[in-house]
Amino acid sequence: MTTHSFTATAWHNVLGTFPPALTVASGDTVITETIDAHGIDKDGVQRAPEPNPMNGPIFVTGAEPGDALKVEILRMTPIRATGWTRASLAGNVVEPEVVRGLPPRDKTNWRIDRQGLTVTPEPAVPGLEHFVLPLEPMIGCFGVAPALGQAFSTATSAENGGNMDYRGFGPGATVWFPVAVPGALFFLGDCHAAQGDGEIVGTGIETCFEVEVRLTVEKGRNLVWPRGESATDIFSVGNARPLDQALQHATTDMFNWLTGDYGLSPAAASHLMGQVVRYDVGNVFDPAYTMVCRIEKKWLPKL
Amino acid sequence: MTTHSFTATAWHNVLGTFPPALTVASGDTVITETIDAHGIDKDGVQRAPEPNPMNGPIFVTGAEPGDALKVEILRMTPIRATGWTRASLAGNVVEPEVVRGLPPRDKTNWRIDRQGLTVTPEPAVPGLEHFVLPLEPMIGCFGVAPALGQAFSTATSAENGGNMDYRGFGPGATVWFPVAVPGALFFLGDCHAAQGDGEIVGTGIETCFEVEVRLTVEKGRNLVWPRGESATDIFSVGNARPLDQALQHATTDMFNWLTGDYGLSPAAASHLMGQVVRYDVGNVFDPAYTMVCRIEKKWLPKL
Amino acid sequence: MTTHSFTATAWHNVLGTFPPALTVASGDTVITETIDAHGIDKDGVQRAPEPNPMNGPIFVTGAEPGDALKVEILRMTPIRATGWTRASLAGNVVEPEVVRGLPPRDKTNWRIDRQGLTVTPEPAVPGLEHFVLPLEPMIGCFGVAPALGQAFSTATSAENGGNMDYRGFGPGATVWFPVAVPGALFFLGDCHAAQGDGEIVGTGIETCFEVEVRLTVEKGRNLVWPRGESATDIFSVGNARPLDQALQHATTDMFNWLTGDYGLSPAAASHLMGQVVRYDVGNVFDPAYTMVCRIEKKWLPKL
Amino acid sequence: MTTHSFTATAWHNVLGTFPPALTVASGDTVITETIDAHGIDKDGVQRAPEPNPMNGPIFVTGAEPGDALKVEILRMTPIRATGWTRASLAGNVVEPEVVRGLPPRDKTNWRIDRQGLTVTPEPAVPGLEHFVLPLEPMIGCFGVAPALGQAFSTATSAENGGNMDYRGFGPGATVWFPVAVPGALFFLGDCHAAQGDGEIVGTGIETCFEVEVRLTVEKGRNLVWPRGESATDIFSVGNARPLDQALQHATTDMFNWLTGDYGLSPAAASHLMGQVVRYDVGNVFDPAYTMVCRIEKKWLPKL
Repeated sequence: MTTHSFTATAWHNVLGTFPPALTVASGDTVITETIDAHGIDKDGVQRAPEPNPMNGPIFVTGAEPGDALKVEILRMTPIRATGWTRASLAGNVVEPEVVRGLPPRDKTNWRIDRQGLTVTPEPAVPGLEHFVLPLEPMIGCFGVAPALGQAFSTATSAENGGNMDYRGFGPGATVWFPVAVPGALFFLGDCHAAQGDGEIVGTGIETCFEVEVRLTVEKGRNLVWPRGESATDIFSVGNARPLDQALQHATTDMFNWLTGDYGLSPAAASHLMGQVVRYDVGNVFDPAYTMVCRIEKKWLPKL
Repeated sequence: MTTHSFTATAWHNVLGTFPPALTVASGDTVITETIDAHGIDKDGVQRAPEPNPMNGPIFVTGAEPGDALKVEILRMTPIRATGWTRASLAGNVVEPEVVRGLPPRDKTNWRIDRQGLTVTPEPAVPGLEHFVLPLEPMIGCFGVAPALGQAFSTATSAENGGNMDYRGFGPGATVWFPVAVPGALFFLGDCHAAQGDGEIVGTGIETCFEVEVRLTVEKGRNLVWPRGESATDIFSVGNARPLDQALQHATTDMFNWLTGDYGLSPAAASHLMGQVVRYDVGNVFDPAYTMVCRIEKKWLPKL
Repeated sequence: MTTHSFTATAWHNVLGTFPPALTVASGDTVITETIDAHGIDKDGVQRAPEPNPMNGPIFVTGAEPGDALKVEILRMTPIRATGWTRASLAGNVVEPEVVRGLPPRDKTNWRIDRQGLTVTPEPAVPGLEHFVLPLEPMIGCFGVAPALGQAFSTATSAENGGNMDYRGFGPGATVWFPVAVPGALFFLGDCHAAQGDGEIVGTGIETCFEVEVRLTVEKGRNLVWPRGESATDIFSVGNARPLDQALQHATTDMFNWLTGDYGLSPAAASHLMGQVVRYDVGNVFDPAYTMVCRIEKKWLPKL
Repeated sequence: MTTHSFTATAWHNVLGTFPPALTVASGDTVITETIDAHGIDKDGVQRAPEPNPMNGPIFVTGAEPGDALKVEILRMTPIRATGWTRASLAGNVVEPEVVRGLPPRDKTNWRIDRQGLTVTPEPAVPGLEHFVLPLEPMIGCFGVAPALGQAFSTATSAENGGNMDYRGFGPGATVWFPVAVPGALFFLGDCHAAQGDGEIVGTGIETCFEVEVRLTVEKGRNLVWPRGESATDIFSVGNARPLDQALQHATTDMFNWLTGDYGLSPAAASHLMGQVVRYDVGNVFDPAYTMVCRIEKKWLPKL
């Protein structure tokens, strides 16, 4: 297995079928520096336009439609001392008439302490003078080229992943994407130093990271939606609006996972899911919302 | 403060303005046995029709519209050795065309081990022979009489609470309801031995409990939606469809809580919520869905 | 058959099981004057609080749960020279961030010309100096007491009807409501001189009418949702949020109507509906939205 | 102005930035034969895979981002004697538990009488033996390449148009699309011999047409969503899920149209829209639903 140090020199604002910026073998590791959601790099230089410019695509040898691309997020190291957010709840997460009174969506700066692994607004926000967040890195937007020759803005998400803004996509997580084109064509970017559920101000703490991922092809998995695994849980991801539909996709995918790979009957899968399932909200800001259906591994039948 | 042992002899299938079954003082404790969602009591006797027959209402002296009724869930002791669930995911939580292939919504029995504090399907479900859940009691449906003389089925929920089916409503939790009528008129029932997020088979493990709650009037709180507190968190509850709207209500209420009681500016409340909020899904089965917006207390400004 | 002249002296802000204000026989006609959505009568006197105070309930002898109450809207005569609306689109009908820039929701007056049968803003709205609407009377809110002892605010709607704000509910229309309590308990009010689809400013042109309706019991119809008929069409009404769910209810009800009363197979009903159905939007402002599924009678099989 | 007879030899299943199949001048007319939604041509030969293969793209000289492409639908002549539909309501248009009992989604044939201009199921559907529809041609899917290098499946729709399945897109209609790439890159296909509102069986009567359209560039219109005009009305089109959001887009666009081109104040636009707007449902089957906000021209201020 090889480790590739990949320096992006061009970025993409859509996930689609583009010429590879890098080709790797299945099982290889890639280390790359990302730029922020507005295309600003670690030195404060604008390198690409918004939204969410992506490093990639990375062609993974051997990946074919019907396979899964397994992405292990091995490490995320912050490489800039600053991040930014918006200073107002997004209009779509509050009652409509309340939007009339929301504050302006100003850009707010945060200081990232790369030794202490904390994040704080700078200058301090009155009333939140003692607000110090732990650094909790996550990838806001990543995924593979979609099927049919489609290409989707990095402002949204779909079966191929994309801008899901789920806190669970941090170091230690493994994610599987449904491969739709030869080589999978993997993209990543839009990393956050921290973020609440829902990305309800429309941003996490947007900054730059050095990200290390291992990319492995799993043949013939025939996934429909992204799936993931943490130390303790497995999870299915649905991306759609309204949130009800994102939940339907994630729930259906978990049901198919349990009745497929795990061999449960539909009734047994229903019983298990009904009593142990957990739902996590990814983003509720983008054109497609993200809902995660999660089950602790301890409840799973032996494979 | 008095402890009342309250034996229900009639039940209500709606939350509305009915003559009190019990009158207590603010700060009093009530111990009462509930029957299950189908109206079956601890001895297997049908005592009331479905849906979700409620004990109550309990008139709390001094409660007036604009006040809050604080409900501390002190204890939930299972009083029946059996519970039941449905054997299929509900149609509304999966992709529509998938519904064609769901199993029948048969009633399935569970054994509740009141010493071991566990719950297991009985007879065993093939494929889940070793499935043993910890007993995690919760109140599925509780709340107060709604405003305007309205009366709502216990199959749904609204500003006054009702059938929210949120796992967080267990022993140790405190919940505040917006009082809309003199005496608040508190109802409770529909208790579950365990339940996953979303109540996605349409039931938790439905059974009977002895429930102990302390009821206290807090004057002039002017709540709109139910609010709650656990050992570690505060939370706001929104009940509506689609889930997006339930989330809007819960998010708006948390925003109002932080800018009101906690004195944060709208921008400071946005910053705090944007980076630390957690969403929990109550039920996604009933006519109104339930979304909970939660914040760890460690992030809150000092009151 | 008798014609009753009914003068309301008290009004209801919820549709529920209350003592009758009038009792009539099946087939009788009722003539009554309504007050406006804010409770102002034809003389400008505040007679009841908002929202949408209702005349009634009217007990129709012989109506039992499972029956339908047929309501023929025979005549609506305007009885006040003024109406009012709101001066801004409602927050929930535009994109969320657009709400920040909407105008205030001021109350605007309209002049109703009862000879010319026209409606105009007064004073004139700059830019709309020549805006003269034809008088197109409709009942905004009407229906029967809901099941189970429930009681719903006249700000919303459900299976029992209520605040549906559908332009089709004007003179010449016939509507059937599912009877849930003895006597049906019919309510009406909130009449509009005109209204666009969706009631997107949150009001029609709110005023007072003398309304003439004939009330007839049809035994054993076992309706779930309101149904209606005009000179040319039959239609089913669904009330829920989101609009998708209202559409599901209306579509399901029309499917049940065609496969039930009209004897079509599910496939034949699908073919007919798929190629000839029309959807009308009632309100998209209230807690429950209203969608109407409509079919021209010329397409129907002979009964 | 030139009339181009355009014979497609390749088709696209996505709307994106592809090399032009034809280049025309602004104001030119194009006559082209479409194949059906499954890629079957007028002779019954499979020419392309589903979904909805498109003729095009057509490059219109002079079109630049920010312009509008005006598409006048001049004529649609049926060129095949058969069409097809699905024999069941789609799962997403009925109540979820009702889906369990829907009939199979079989393919059903229809006979198109090109002299009589009628359409009938063949063989006859029991119960609908006398069901003869008038031919009402419409374009199911058409639009331009989306912005940012995106590419969207012809199974869905967005700001650039696509699979909107709106009955109003027939001969005599004019539609404007927001140009996002040089030349606009216009696509069309998926024509229907007839269709009810909502495309609720998931198809119209799918067949092949000779379509004649005139394509004209209008500079600097800066549209966001498709707009249209019939002999009597102007209309804005929103494409999204849920239907509520599609309605928000269409309503916002009409509001912007009236306050922009027509110079109304926000309050005047609200008054006009509130009392005269009509909503038409495009499709409620595809990933994005379509809602049309329509106003009769007689209500519009003079431009």
